[in-house]
Amino acid sequence: MRTKALSALARRSPEPAISWLMQLTLDRPKLISLAAGFTDNESLPVAEAAEILHDVLKPGRRGQAALQYGSTAGDPRLRERTLKRIEKLDGGSTGYSSDDVIITHGSQQLLYILTEALCDPGDIVLVEDPTYFVYLGILQSHGIRARGVRLTPEGLDIEDLARVLEDLKRKGELGRVKMLYQVPYFQNPTGWTSQFERKTAALELLRKYERAAGHPIYLLEDAAYRELRFAGDDVASALAAPKFRARVLYAGTYSKPFATGARVGFGILPEPVRTAELRIKGNHDFGTANLLQQLLLRALETCKYETHLAEIQRRYRRKARLMTRAIEAHFPSSIVWMHPAGGLYVWATVPQGVTSGVKSKLFRTGLERDVLYVPGELCYADDPARRKPNRDLRISFGGAADADIPVGIARLGSILRKLV
Amino acid sequence: MRTKALSALARRSPEPAISWLMQLTLDRPKLISLAAGFTDNESLPVAEAAEILHDVLKPGRRGQAALQYGSTAGDPRLRERTLKRIEKLDGGSTGYSSDDVIITHGSQQLLYILTEALCDPGDIVLVEDPTYFVYLGILQSHGIRARGVRLTPEGLDIEDLARVLEDLKRKGELGRVKMLYQVPYFQNPTGWTSQFERKTAALELLRKYERAAGHPIYLLEDAAYRELRFAGDDVASALAAPKFRARVLYAGTYSKPFATGARVGFGILPEPVRTAELRIKGNHDFGTANLLQQLLLRALETCKYETHLAEIQRRYRRKARLMTRAIEAHFPSSIVWMHPAGGLYVWATVPQGVTSGVKSKLFRTGLERDVLYVPGELCYADDPARRKPNRDLRISFGGAADADIPVGIARLGSILRKLV
Repeated sequence: MRTKALSALARRSPEPAISWLMQLTLDRPKLISLAAGFTDNESLPVAEAAEILHDVLKPGRRGQAALQYGSTAGDPRLRERTLKRIEKLDGGSTGYSSDDVIITHGSQQLLYILTEALCDPGDIVLVEDPTYFVYLGILQSHGIRARGVRLTPEGLDIEDLARVLEDLKRKGELGRVKMLYQVPYFQNPTGWTSQFERKTAALELLRKYERAAGHPIYLLEDAAYRELRFAGDDVASALAAPKFRARVLYAGTYSKPFATGARVGFGILPEPVRTAELRIKGNHDFGTANLLQQLLLRALETCKYETHLAEIQRRYRRKARLMTRAIEAHFPSSIVWMHPAGGLYVWATVPQGVTSGVKSKLFRTGLERDVLYVPGELCYADDPARRKPNRDLRISFGGAADADIPVGIARLGSILRKLV
Repeated sequence: MRTKALSALARRSPEPAISWLMQLTLDRPKLISLAAGFTDNESLPVAEAAEILHDVLKPGRRGQAALQYGSTAGDPRLRERTLKRIEKLDGGSTGYSSDDVIITHGSQQLLYILTEALCDPGDIVLVEDPTYFVYLGILQSHGIRARGVRLTPEGLDIEDLARVLEDLKRKGELGRVKMLYQVPYFQNPTGWTSQFERKTAALELLRKYERAAGHPIYLLEDAAYRELRFAGDDVASALAAPKFRARVLYAGTYSKPFATGARVGFGILPEPVRTAELRIKGNHDFGTANLLQQLLLRALETCKYETHLAEIQRRYRRKARLMTRAIEAHFPSSIVWMHPAGGLYVWATVPQGVTSGVKSKLFRTGLERDVLYVPGELCYADDPARRKPNRDLRISFGGAADADIPVGIARLGSILRKLV
């Protein structure tokens, strides 16, 4: 890009890895993509959406309202239902009211606006190590530093969080730390779910450092995959810890569990973040497209959402099993991975001596043989104190067709057996 | 707001005037709002949208695709159709390709992202004086200075633009000037349309100052109301001036002409702005909700869009006439205003000695008598060199019911007759 006219933000916005990966997929029509993080076409609720929209767009006032501007915060009934859903998942009232719920164009928009609302260039956001790579791109574009905290299959490594906070305190940089960003349900990229106690332990620790920071330090809980559980029981969100009520920013979405083409996400936010988010959202777009909100509201009211969700969960359970069986059959035993209990991803780590990055033999041979994964290196924050881990693969069973999953895994397995 | 944790952007984002006006409307159910800038409920294409979505959401691949993620730039067919539409309006090829078209969640999102892409805090954007007040809020939140250039019913006052540019050059601030923002069709708030020659004269002048600025200075042409013409002929956009091809950022929308609840806008952008916009848009939301794009695409393909647009134009012609007749009957003759040829607004200026601002007797008495307009003072950029004009009213015939328009105008007229 010729950049002389562009802002610092534009100059800091690199081509996102995700569009490069998408382009690879388009350029090789035979490619089996185990990279895409979206749900598969077969799972989309076409008949349900058609029926609902037919109903929403009946002649008269309701149909008109669906095609008119709404408020910036979103439809009051959708906000009420959203709060009730989350409270039900969390086993009771969170102490929030539906006024604290804001509807957004996908949870991605919420992440963007919250970052705008809290962070200035030069600020620091703590992230899981590894983390959702698109969020690293948002931080980079705003000139915000990401600092990784070690992630375990049970949640954040609290001792490492303590070390990181101490280190920042020592360097006089605590005042720049605005929040901790977590994807605590079937994390992107690892598929791991954080225990509730890990989240509250993190909040406890963050609170200790607030005095030195001079301001609140928030936990942004990105629960995008929460409803995509297909084994085991839900874990309460950090909203369920009343003690930390004013420090939790909860981001959820209806896109992945229902339809990614209907971009409806939501936030549950304490003040003053809620008001700041709302004002910035007003500048972005006045509010989320009302027609999409009415689609989701009716899906929730008629239980079509629940029915579809159960179907999606069955579907991903089956696809996850297809993938894990293929991995068991084809991957060398030295490769470390876990059975996912939800979400869209398996995270696999190859032994030392082998690498998985975009320049690695594994990745390039995979491409030649028409199989694509997301190199784990994209998911780690820059950190001058260490080399970026380069031995992980994010392998998705979400977007690929059933029949392609074992074929793709077998191809990766055959390459891996030669490399290991 | 307690603001210690918030970013500079959040702290600079005041409560938008628009939500305060909306709240006034909600608080007084009997209020006749001549303030709202939206289209009226009766005009919304409920039956058309129902039919199209029934068709889009047929079982099978097309239905699935409509509920799946699309690309960040938007549906290629919608981009192609969009370009063709604009080229047809402009009387021939603009030299752009559909690759240069980006679909956004309303044109508002495009304005936001373009501002992010071009401007840093402290930069300057030239705006019409008066201008679209929501855009002033976007600039303020980003710490960008708005500098007004006098607007006439024929377009920008080019001599005033020259004076402003000279003044900025003298002060050494030309390097901060990134663009000129115009709403050249049935402008919000004045309803005036800029002549084509005024736009090219402005571009010519901006180009002269680029060397001193050290970078391109763009014209952002916000054509939100272009299709809402109900009298006279269309004026070509600045895209039609090949000489300035690389300096025009064209923002259009399908929301106002079709359905404000389906937020679909678009940009036609030269490099490097296009790529920057696309990268930032990817961070915002990956792309515009595909379902909404398919709705608009089908509306265009089936000519339902054209048919509806003709109906909307007839509707606003009638409503504008209702309003102007009432103004002729009820307003004192010393009030200056013009017959609109499109859009949603009449701009009226009261004689010296009377004021129209939020604290004025006119505005407050209007509220007491349940009639609301947008005080013109909200539409002027801050300027230490002059007091903000405080004698204008933006009166909208868009949102109010037919029967309410003469009643609201009669109430304003009776107050005005006492004040003048």
